[in-house]
Amino acid sequence: MRNPCFADTPEPPYYVVIFSAQRTPGDNGYADMAERMVELAARQPGFLGIERARNPDGFGLNVSYWVSEEAIAAWRNHAEHALARQTGRERWYAQFSLRVARVERAYGTTLRK
Amino acid sequence: MRNPCFADTPEPPYYVVIFSAQRTPGDNGYADMAERMVELAARQPGFLGIERARNPDGFGLNVSYWVSEEAIAAWRNHAEHALARQTGRERWYAQFSLRVARVERAYGTTLRK
Repeated sequence: MRNPCFADTPEPPYYVVIFSAQRTPGDNGYADMAERMVELAARQPGFLGIERARNPDGFGLNVSYWVSEEAIAAWRNHAEHALARQTGRERWYAQFSLRVARVERAYGTTLRK
Repeated sequence: MRNPCFADTPEPPYYVVIFSAQRTPGDNGYADMAERMVELAARQPGFLGIERARNPDGFGLNVSYWVSEEAIAAWRNHAEHALARQTGRERWYAQFSLRVARVERAYGTTLRK
């Protein structure tokens, strides 16, 4: 059975957004927003998958995969996502960084051969 | 003060290795190896930084940044790292995937302006 923590991506090339963030203390509505954003992202054209992990101290990585830069731009311009990012900067994240990268090659036990 | 969970990377372009893995139960020497590998990687030419997070269920992301594909290849060929990967496949990781990507752009509160 597939482990749902892993993104089931196609052969490269494709794109990845790496969001690294230190959470503020407490939930403050974060968990509900995060689940909602994953649901919304999954319905966006060009979404390939997402992988997420967070340490007990609140530092986390959110890695989402997309078919193209255009798909990433469309998701960035989604109104509800834009509002969540704004609230994130004000309330949920003490610090963050975001990187967009082009996946050149991939291998592993969870990827399609 | 800088949060040491964040990698302090320069302006793009640079490269990233995204290692996603589901741990097997128990430590079995994993934590010691992981710290040793971070120490060794940090001494490699072309290493820019690393960001790591793991969920309580054992799924984790290990994201390392490098100046070039050549730097990534040299680290892959490091003998002690090769042995650790072999042991990882046999003992520490139930499943994994690895992606190499070229970072095109980056922003955030933790990055150099």
